[in-house]
Amino acid sequence: MKKIPVGILGATGMVGQNYIAMLAGHPWFEVNYVAASLRSAGKKYGEAMSGRWLLPKTYQSSVAELVIENANDISRAEAAAARGELAFVFSALEMGKEDILALENSYAAAGIPVVSNASANRWTDDVPMLIAEVNPDHADIIPSQRSARGWNKGFIAVKPNCSIQSYVTPLWALLREGCEIKRMIVTTMQAVSGAGYPGVASLDVIDNVVPYIGGEEEKSELEPLKILGTVRNGKIEKAAAPLISAHCNRVPVINGHTATISVEFGAKKPSVEQVKQIWTNFSALPQELKLPLAPEQPIIVRNEDNRPQPNKDRDAYKGMAVSVGRIRPCPVFDLRFVGLSHNTARGAAGGGILNAELLKAKGYIA
Amino acid sequence: MKKIPVGILGATGMVGQNYIAMLAGHPWFEVNYVAASLRSAGKKYGEAMSGRWLLPKTYQSSVAELVIENANDISRAEAAAARGELAFVFSALEMGKEDILALENSYAAAGIPVVSNASANRWTDDVPMLIAEVNPDHADIIPSQRSARGWNKGFIAVKPNCSIQSYVTPLWALLREGCEIKRMIVTTMQAVSGAGYPGVASLDVIDNVVPYIGGEEEKSELEPLKILGTVRNGKIEKAAAPLISAHCNRVPVINGHTATISVEFGAKKPSVEQVKQIWTNFSALPQELKLPLAPEQPIIVRNEDNRPQPNKDRDAYKGMAVSVGRIRPCPVFDLRFVGLSHNTARGAAGGGILNAELLKAKGYIA
Amino acid sequence: MKKIPVGILGATGMVGQNYIAMLAGHPWFEVNYVAASLRSAGKKYGEAMSGRWLLPKTYQSSVAELVIENANDISRAEAAAARGELAFVFSALEMGKEDILALENSYAAAGIPVVSNASANRWTDDVPMLIAEVNPDHADIIPSQRSARGWNKGFIAVKPNCSIQSYVTPLWALLREGCEIKRMIVTTMQAVSGAGYPGVASLDVIDNVVPYIGGEEEKSELEPLKILGTVRNGKIEKAAAPLISAHCNRVPVINGHTATISVEFGAKKPSVEQVKQIWTNFSALPQELKLPLAPEQPIIVRNEDNRPQPNKDRDAYKGMAVSVGRIRPCPVFDLRFVGLSHNTARGAAGGGILNAELLKAKGYIA
Amino acid sequence: MKKIPVGILGATGMVGQNYIAMLAGHPWFEVNYVAASLRSAGKKYGEAMSGRWLLPKTYQSSVAELVIENANDISRAEAAAARGELAFVFSALEMGKEDILALENSYAAAGIPVVSNASANRWTDDVPMLIAEVNPDHADIIPSQRSARGWNKGFIAVKPNCSIQSYVTPLWALLREGCEIKRMIVTTMQAVSGAGYPGVASLDVIDNVVPYIGGEEEKSELEPLKILGTVRNGKIEKAAAPLISAHCNRVPVINGHTATISVEFGAKKPSVEQVKQIWTNFSALPQELKLPLAPEQPIIVRNEDNRPQPNKDRDAYKGMAVSVGRIRPCPVFDLRFVGLSHNTARGAAGGGILNAELLKAKGYIA
Repeated sequence: MKKIPVGILGATGMVGQNYIAMLAGHPWFEVNYVAASLRSAGKKYGEAMSGRWLLPKTYQSSVAELVIENANDISRAEAAAARGELAFVFSALEMGKEDILALENSYAAAGIPVVSNASANRWTDDVPMLIAEVNPDHADIIPSQRSARGWNKGFIAVKPNCSIQSYVTPLWALLREGCEIKRMIVTTMQAVSGAGYPGVASLDVIDNVVPYIGGEEEKSELEPLKILGTVRNGKIEKAAAPLISAHCNRVPVINGHTATISVEFGAKKPSVEQVKQIWTNFSALPQELKLPLAPEQPIIVRNEDNRPQPNKDRDAYKGMAVSVGRIRPCPVFDLRFVGLSHNTARGAAGGGILNAELLKAKGYIA
Repeated sequence: MKKIPVGILGATGMVGQNYIAMLAGHPWFEVNYVAASLRSAGKKYGEAMSGRWLLPKTYQSSVAELVIENANDISRAEAAAARGELAFVFSALEMGKEDILALENSYAAAGIPVVSNASANRWTDDVPMLIAEVNPDHADIIPSQRSARGWNKGFIAVKPNCSIQSYVTPLWALLREGCEIKRMIVTTMQAVSGAGYPGVASLDVIDNVVPYIGGEEEKSELEPLKILGTVRNGKIEKAAAPLISAHCNRVPVINGHTATISVEFGAKKPSVEQVKQIWTNFSALPQELKLPLAPEQPIIVRNEDNRPQPNKDRDAYKGMAVSVGRIRPCPVFDLRFVGLSHNTARGAAGGGILNAELLKAKGYIA
Repeated sequence: MKKIPVGILGATGMVGQNYIAMLAGHPWFEVNYVAASLRSAGKKYGEAMSGRWLLPKTYQSSVAELVIENANDISRAEAAAARGELAFVFSALEMGKEDILALENSYAAAGIPVVSNASANRWTDDVPMLIAEVNPDHADIIPSQRSARGWNKGFIAVKPNCSIQSYVTPLWALLREGCEIKRMIVTTMQAVSGAGYPGVASLDVIDNVVPYIGGEEEKSELEPLKILGTVRNGKIEKAAAPLISAHCNRVPVINGHTATISVEFGAKKPSVEQVKQIWTNFSALPQELKLPLAPEQPIIVRNEDNRPQPNKDRDAYKGMAVSVGRIRPCPVFDLRFVGLSHNTARGAAGGGILNAELLKAKGYIA
Repeated sequence: MKKIPVGILGATGMVGQNYIAMLAGHPWFEVNYVAASLRSAGKKYGEAMSGRWLLPKTYQSSVAELVIENANDISRAEAAAARGELAFVFSALEMGKEDILALENSYAAAGIPVVSNASANRWTDDVPMLIAEVNPDHADIIPSQRSARGWNKGFIAVKPNCSIQSYVTPLWALLREGCEIKRMIVTTMQAVSGAGYPGVASLDVIDNVVPYIGGEEEKSELEPLKILGTVRNGKIEKAAAPLISAHCNRVPVINGHTATISVEFGAKKPSVEQVKQIWTNFSALPQELKLPLAPEQPIIVRNEDNRPQPNKDRDAYKGMAVSVGRIRPCPVFDLRFVGLSHNTARGAAGGGILNAELLKAKGYIA
């Protein structure tokens, strides 16, 4: 099978690098187009990245040879698409919100689907914000999106913020079994890679915790409501519950966001044992479709007292599984637990790739 | 004024070292007796500690010359007391609970007051668990304690766990103003020095978070209730509220426990501005008495977005103040904020010394 | 092909865990026997390790089911060997030197070859200290060793200390090309995993460097001389050069020992370019034999200014390659560079496994 | 005594902040003028620094009230000097080299002495590069500098790079006793605060070492030669020895540069015991003059195996002393040891302040 040629917008940044690293050897997709700011445009990727590549796993030699395009010059992407050399793009753009909005729209309007990691379009009401195991049906808003915008082949789909990945899938697993979740109080301890590069200054996190990450608490409280929402009349309506309070902190960890979570159930309250069972047995559409990057076990229940931990659990299933532990009753609410998710894998590039796999399986990408 | 001669039980351990460092130059107290396990007994303190001293601030030369006594041999302490060379002891013992109980009792029975950092006697119902700004009146259970045990001069007073110091004083400040606090959900991010030495293995915390500290959540949930309790018939009765849920985590920080706190008020709900004002203006008995180690400002309100932080705020007023910040409404409960307290200063040796200062001011130590 | 059944002595310790993790899926060897101290003996490995396993990569379910034997009870290993269930053992024992000497000798005497990670036998003059790329010929002292001890099938072979791996192979590559190396001054910055578990206290390395590791400088200066030595009359005679001065430091890094090295050449002085070429082209017997764990490229030359770095380069070829960089003239000696080697892979378990592969290829293990 | 009013150029940067923190309560100097880039100019210092102040110790309220001047507008400084409100400036400018050269010259030409932390003027041959204990006599080049430039009251004096402070004073102590030092090989392990703020990205140093700091090795090798040089005909001539090879590394430490040093002596070789004695007894002009920031003991000899360490020794004498340890023979050269110096105290602001104290004591500042 010929692989689908994909592009990376923002290919030189940290998320872009993660896309390239995680796509190496992908069975369906092949990086064939890299775009960045004008400053890097025109250079071969391998040359541009010498001394700037941040990851242990390096890029493929085929990617090293790609000439970086100017991400603002959509005509180059259109031409590549016309030649059959570009089927869709992953957006890992690092710009102001308005610029990203305009640019992602332009690619989609030009017939190039955009699977985005950026936050700019997360609250556009006909853009699905996908966690492949949770709301794959939201992808089916794409025909409405296309028709409302007069787009033919292009569309925009996004993934949510990295900070919510450790608790949304576990919560969804409970909701799917009929549990009602009324309120939650969450504290995150987030890795520095979530801030990109150079991101967090070392002076700010060695021997320290920073109890603030700009914009992160709002995202952590609101994005779950769209993901758990309902498609109605071509728009996604937010769910009414759960009500979430998030305290977001930066800690001296390279990769892996940890969260402590207290949950208040409504009418149907599962026991701790039922929760463990529901999570252990949880499987969803990506698993059923055997999508290449879908973790065999989306939620890993750890029974040891002291797990999950970032440096031991973040890499489970290529960083695509959520690990949970310390599942126990909450003396104030009903249930409490610890969740952990790899923020640059599941929470960024890996989540985007899994979304693209889902969109291909559903026929929106070809 | 001749200084009061004090002893340190467990003088070679980490908390013992902190007592010695913090007592250097103390206007009232002078370290005059050091006791440890049999292994160290008989050596001069300075010799025993060469290569084992853990702190930047070193011990005084007068302490270096003290010969370490066997902490289990109370007759030595009795003899020192009889010679007027030992007025009371700080207990920083590191042993099993039963051993500490027995040993602290024996010192007190021998007429030597014990101001303890250990947890063994925290739930003895006639032993006050003191935070000098919060429940100084609990010290007045000492006469009952003495009479019930048939002790003449000795007594036992303890301080609570380091994990609760960042939120109990702020909560007390609100309670004192008539606010009702019903429930709280707390997540702590605790420094490694809280586990003593060698304590936490570096392999467990570099690039990592450990979401579990044995026994810490129970202490964090229950100890506040005794501190906020009432003395009745020679016993301290636990308060009924607030109900607390604590998630305790170890993070790669040397000193300073940070906590995120969500608070549900009852009838009287202060506004964010009122809370800031109450905390800024808070002052209590130790400040009134001008106790030597009492922080001029017990609660420091930080208005910057990103404070308090352990490595910038822990040392405020010699590590004796609590710093709070990010005071804002909680979408689930009423109020949320971040608290920070230096775990080896206010949370251990400094808290013990301040308690001893209070007990001296009240006449229980002479 | 039926796999060779191997045993791990010290299977519950950190090096033992690394052996088990690195042997998972090995094409020739299969862990079939695990032994530890009496305390763990009798338990299934999986049960004993719950909460004690330290690595991201977990153990195989087949290993989880093995019952831990008492490492001091050699009769159990003999019986297993007699049943064809144990061909040789990896020694990752953590005991006093004399105990290890006695125990390794007993296994070998019982006909069970010992491939050891321990330092006890490193200076036994008929025991080869092997780096598979450097002195594979030293393995051929085994027949003399056996005959001198009256052993039939058993033998002892060891690997050197983890601190020297980043510079010995590069130096050997130059020596092999005829360069003379007279003197070297080395400073190591060593990872905490080198000290085992719990090993280095977090209080000692967060925001800190410890400029001392007991015994490490002596090993770093002397072991290379045995490795570069000559077999004569059934004994290994130390090489006379190079003279080495080592400064060994502990730094807050989980895995990967970095070293800065200044080298004084004798008569034949290679240019910087020649050095880069020699290292890039270096290949040796393990590569020729295509041993399973042999890194395709044993020495990786990095040309970026700021490489090698532990967290980017340690995992090259499963942690079995040495990465070098900053190759430049030394104003005091002739050449200086930075070397990096993964201390628990190449420097411990991985190095031991590669040695066993070499010994199998040479017919000493069957 | 009325204090001397001083200015800080670059007052909002990290070194500027350190100057302000270290000058709080200084007996001779008072911060009375703060200048920074145009961006900050016009704001009160306290307002400008809210959320940007990086240090545990905060600025004085008198400094908070100062209005920040534009550092490029020398007329403002001249006017302040004319009013008697500015006697000299500390330069902590962070700009390109040419801009700093021009600006420092302009201040000096305007009659305002410049005591600089910047590297721009370090190699100007009539500008003294001072370590107050080592080459205080170089200050006496100031009259020549003034006359050559036609300056009346202004002058420029600089301090050397932070990376050399841990070994130059110890070496000078030996040279002063008549030892000849021919060659040295040095490896530094430098703290992140040396790179300013934001400086080193946390992704680059958590669980990592970066074996490269741009320009640092050249400074570490050459600057000692100017400091040890000779004033001749109004210029400072470099010393011919020692020949130095420096390997500079960044490690995850907040403050405190550690170095390992191997030294080759010439004719007169002191024994290890003599070296310890020379260093313990070392005292120089700043101690004799009892300059306010002069450490009582400029070189602290640690006899424990595992010292000096950054987080235990950096703060000795307010960070102004050098701590040395592990003094032992070098198998390749003659002597080896570990040196440690606080890079933002002695190595930056503290070193600058001590230089100003020396220059005042010598009458160049009034």
